[in-house]
Amino acid sequence: MAGATIAVASDHAGFDLKEILKSDLQHAGYAVLDLGTNSTASVDYPDFGEAMGEAIAAGKAEKGVLVCGSGIGISIAANRNPEVRAVLAHDATSARLSREHNDANVVAFGQRLIGVEVAREALKIFLATPFEGGRHAARVAKLSGVSKS
Amino acid sequence: MAGATIAVASDHAGFDLKEILKSDLQHAGYAVLDLGTNSTASVDYPDFGEAMGEAIAAGKAEKGVLVCGSGIGISIAANRNPEVRAVLAHDATSARLSREHNDANVVAFGQRLIGVEVAREALKIFLATPFEGGRHAARVAKLSGVSKS
Repeated sequence: MAGATIAVASDHAGFDLKEILKSDLQHAGYAVLDLGTNSTASVDYPDFGEAMGEAIAAGKAEKGVLVCGSGIGISIAANRNPEVRAVLAHDATSARLSREHNDANVVAFGQRLIGVEVAREALKIFLATPFEGGRHAARVAKLSGVSKS
Repeated sequence: MAGATIAVASDHAGFDLKEILKSDLQHAGYAVLDLGTNSTASVDYPDFGEAMGEAIAAGKAEKGVLVCGSGIGISIAANRNPEVRAVLAHDATSARLSREHNDANVVAFGQRLIGVEVAREALKIFLATPFEGGRHAARVAKLSGVSKS
């Protein structure tokens, strides 16, 4: 999938890890769409989760990477968009399963909770793992049609 | 918060852990609203994540607990509802932070990824930890207003 466009976004508390993962992506041959933030000055994570949702829904990127302090808030924000399937990954195993079973298109990390090398490996595996389809396909389709009461 | 109503829901792959956590909640004095599933027969996790969203949005439960195999799919489904702030918790630390910073009202676990005792402790801490408010409040408010393009 090298050559594909991967969007990256973070808040201030995820900025450092976002920059590391962005560099990894560029070295691996991906085109990177950086949606910010661009410093450690305080910003609101929902704005960056929302920007990721818009980029994915508009087809500007095939997959996305999100980082905030815990990964929690920014992944909730991104999942508001029905086109996003964002996994809050704590390790390579959850990153792999999110691709195999959920066809996840966004991976979120918590800079204060995950080790740098664990995050780097989880991202690599996230991008390398195909969706299994089969019995999982109908469930994934339902994720875009879940009603918002 | 004993006496409050906590909703629980899972798919077949999360049924066993859901039953354990339900029992813990009942012993701790909570009222439990069980949204299913009620066996290990195959079902679709999005249906149960959606049911949780509807229960939370309708005020039928103050907080919720979700379980599927990885916790990923069911937490994505629940977060489609703008009234839900669901954390995929891998440990007590992420459960605590989700309450302090994100005012999370739903905690999701992956039965195949988390140890039973880790999940039991994470749920206990989730329910015992108050939201910090302050600078976090405006960001949490944005999570209910994130646009769905």
